[in-house]
Amino acid sequence: MALLCSRLLLRNASRHYHFYRIKDLSLENCKPGNKVNVKGWVKSVRNMKGNLFVDINDGSGPRNLQLVVNKEKNIDTAYGSSVDACGVIVASPKNQLELHVDTLTEVGKCPLTEGYPFYPKKSYPPEYIRNHLHLRSRVNSMASTFRVRHEATRAFNEYLQQEGFVQIHTPVLTSNDCEGAGEAFLVKPLNEQLLKSMAKENVPVDHAYFDRATFLTVSGQLHLEAMSHGLDKVYTFGPTFRAENCKSNIHLSEFYMLELEEAFMDTLEELTQRVEGMLKNVTKNVLERSEADLSVIRRLTTDDGKLEKGFRWMDRPFPRLTYEEALDILKANEGKLKSPVRREEGINKEQELFLVDHCQGPVFVCYWPKEIKSFYMRENAANPLLADALDLLVPHVGELVGGSVREDSYERLQRKLPNQDVLQWYLDLRKFGSVTTAGFGLGFERYLSWLLNVHNIKDVIPFPRWAHNCVM
Amino acid sequence: MALLCSRLLLRNASRHYHFYRIKDLSLENCKPGNKVNVKGWVKSVRNMKGNLFVDINDGSGPRNLQLVVNKEKNIDTAYGSSVDACGVIVASPKNQLELHVDTLTEVGKCPLTEGYPFYPKKSYPPEYIRNHLHLRSRVNSMASTFRVRHEATRAFNEYLQQEGFVQIHTPVLTSNDCEGAGEAFLVKPLNEQLLKSMAKENVPVDHAYFDRATFLTVSGQLHLEAMSHGLDKVYTFGPTFRAENCKSNIHLSEFYMLELEEAFMDTLEELTQRVEGMLKNVTKNVLERSEADLSVIRRLTTDDGKLEKGFRWMDRPFPRLTYEEALDILKANEGKLKSPVRREEGINKEQELFLVDHCQGPVFVCYWPKEIKSFYMRENAANPLLADALDLLVPHVGELVGGSVREDSYERLQRKLPNQDVLQWYLDLRKFGSVTTAGFGLGFERYLSWLLNVHNIKDVIPFPRWAHNCVM
Repeated sequence: MALLCSRLLLRNASRHYHFYRIKDLSLENCKPGNKVNVKGWVKSVRNMKGNLFVDINDGSGPRNLQLVVNKEKNIDTAYGSSVDACGVIVASPKNQLELHVDTLTEVGKCPLTEGYPFYPKKSYPPEYIRNHLHLRSRVNSMASTFRVRHEATRAFNEYLQQEGFVQIHTPVLTSNDCEGAGEAFLVKPLNEQLLKSMAKENVPVDHAYFDRATFLTVSGQLHLEAMSHGLDKVYTFGPTFRAENCKSNIHLSEFYMLELEEAFMDTLEELTQRVEGMLKNVTKNVLERSEADLSVIRRLTTDDGKLEKGFRWMDRPFPRLTYEEALDILKANEGKLKSPVRREEGINKEQELFLVDHCQGPVFVCYWPKEIKSFYMRENAANPLLADALDLLVPHVGELVGGSVREDSYERLQRKLPNQDVLQWYLDLRKFGSVTTAGFGLGFERYLSWLLNVHNIKDVIPFPRWAHNCVM
Repeated sequence: MALLCSRLLLRNASRHYHFYRIKDLSLENCKPGNKVNVKGWVKSVRNMKGNLFVDINDGSGPRNLQLVVNKEKNIDTAYGSSVDACGVIVASPKNQLELHVDTLTEVGKCPLTEGYPFYPKKSYPPEYIRNHLHLRSRVNSMASTFRVRHEATRAFNEYLQQEGFVQIHTPVLTSNDCEGAGEAFLVKPLNEQLLKSMAKENVPVDHAYFDRATFLTVSGQLHLEAMSHGLDKVYTFGPTFRAENCKSNIHLSEFYMLELEEAFMDTLEELTQRVEGMLKNVTKNVLERSEADLSVIRRLTTDDGKLEKGFRWMDRPFPRLTYEEALDILKANEGKLKSPVRREEGINKEQELFLVDHCQGPVFVCYWPKEIKSFYMRENAANPLLADALDLLVPHVGELVGGSVREDSYERLQRKLPNQDVLQWYLDLRKFGSVTTAGFGLGFERYLSWLLNVHNIKDVIPFPRWAHNCVM
């Protein structure tokens, strides 16, 4: 009943006040003297000269609004409460808008002593905050992170729209185990009765729902290729899954991947241009649109909002190394590395980060030995020991993008295909109106981790899932 | 080697020709006489007066480009092939651009007799097309469907961006079984060795990966509510899962849902305005931007691209019925219905479609008996037997949207909560800085099925999954 009564009171009280979200409160669209209603959560309360100064945030942006409550109003509130406030807009001497409160209603209190995990004026390590996933959006840096994640999602979608790509919702449930690496999750209905009722001869009962083993996708690439043979430019952006027992700060069991495929693209050079052009365009937009949120997360120290040192790569071309050139650099610096450099083992994370450091920013590594790359990557025409494959290495996380020109020879693909039964359809694409396609996958959380300078990708996704952890 | 040689030939041949996608070929940005290169798939070939007329499509839109090949060129091609053509742009008498071909290379042939399922000038039933998922993007109506799906996705994102919503990637993997209806899929790693190596005491080995039973999400709503308590306006748009043995034309095992949550919203009237405003805005944008693709799918017969009869609802308010009023209408018309009308059983699909027909368009049904609605829906303040819940019923599919104001009383929620252990965090939201939130879920494939007048939702999603069906 308390909430019902307060609702009725609020409705009467706010009749003469115009509702604003805090991000829309600026001198351009709200004049001093205006009667305004705002709703949000109390971030701090200070008692000075008998007035109560209450900072509230409503989630619309990182900026708080200061409420000024005259002591004679006999109004009280506290950190964490949700409030509904009506008052008059006043411009402070620094031209900051503040609200001189007529009425303030506490919608919900926040009893710290009953287990609320975040106390005022305290900062907590990310691991602690991560233990309270359901309340993370109240933590300023996390709210900013989620708004930047939204802006980055939007920027990728907008760039791809401008470039004429069609977004394809590739499936989460799949009967191919794309990479064949055995890191997939298996799926079946919870309801055992249902499974039994759907059983067929020659199908194990656990597979009865779909008549076959069914996995969570590890990549939408093969499905994208099918769509690309007809729609040309396509992409998918969604969750991808790996069942690994891994404690690294760049792995998750459920993570987001941007995957893209273009028909009639048949050189690695074109593919590097696509990756580089996209990353620069998207990053520019996010830096411009999310400046305030980024400064909360990165605590930027640059003047005038200019790009800080970490973003100098935006203004110059990414270097392209061949795999051989990358190995030569690593071998010449083996003394500085903890791990040995071995041609047949690829490039590990320490080595990736060394190359990035050496090149002072993002760097492409192109033309890998084909035996350490996937079956669907095209054999190089000039050197059949190589695959037309690339990785983009970036600061902070190492490998951000992996891509390739896809094998376009029916015969070669047939020889390399890991599972002829399940992937016969994939061969068909090379048989009927075949074209060469190229594409890549980009780890979205790794991108955010790099952009935001956040150490662990578990802190750039709202609900991280990893080994032994699937809370909520 | 064939592809390699043709690549080199192509590169030389196309040096003096400017590449265009067909959707960008218009008199505004390409003048007759221009040398142009296009790439696509052959949709038809006609031999007339010694010339070859070849229609090609490149996936950029529904429009084909006509290639005119002089017989003296001695060039041949056939339906289904992928081609790379260079030539000179000529405006036909009707001011249609066509390409008078200098060179045409078949990149990949399409040997119909070796199992290609789609023959020229033939139309096939949707069930047949669905049996060839990997080649569906070559079928004109399917390519148009996937482009419209993309535009609808974009329109929802844009509307929500304008309205200040933050997109949250709610998890696919979850340890709550939200609705508790037992229709969830269960997940575990494929690798049994991995499971054993992660085993702990008191945890069944099948649950060892996450230390608990883990499901595919049936709804992101509860996670959204957590985010809304801090970010206010949030939404999620992504795949959702149901393990049902269901052959209906409006159900899938993996389908897309748009779910939205707004803090400080506490009346059903505000929620109906949100739903109606969104649907009208999004549909207007899709109808404008996808006119050509829609006409391929719907075979529109209206003049001047005006909205056809089916979209008259765009210009008038959606009626709001209470559940009681809806039942009164149904009872008064029980003679026209096959199914009996029973207050305690809700409204079945036949009855939904009857109400839609009766109201001549989309209609809200509000204030349902609480015992047939979910635990998280708020008990109505005036009548505690009702829930502040709504369904939006639309032509063609029936229920499109389900939403409610959420229960904001800690005590009532505690009494109704199905699983106190797993959902303690959900109760916490009502304890610390609580606000009333409201929101809804919209079935995206149902929306498209209605918009496109496509009978079965399996034909508006690129890779449909349902009982006994998970191909690719």
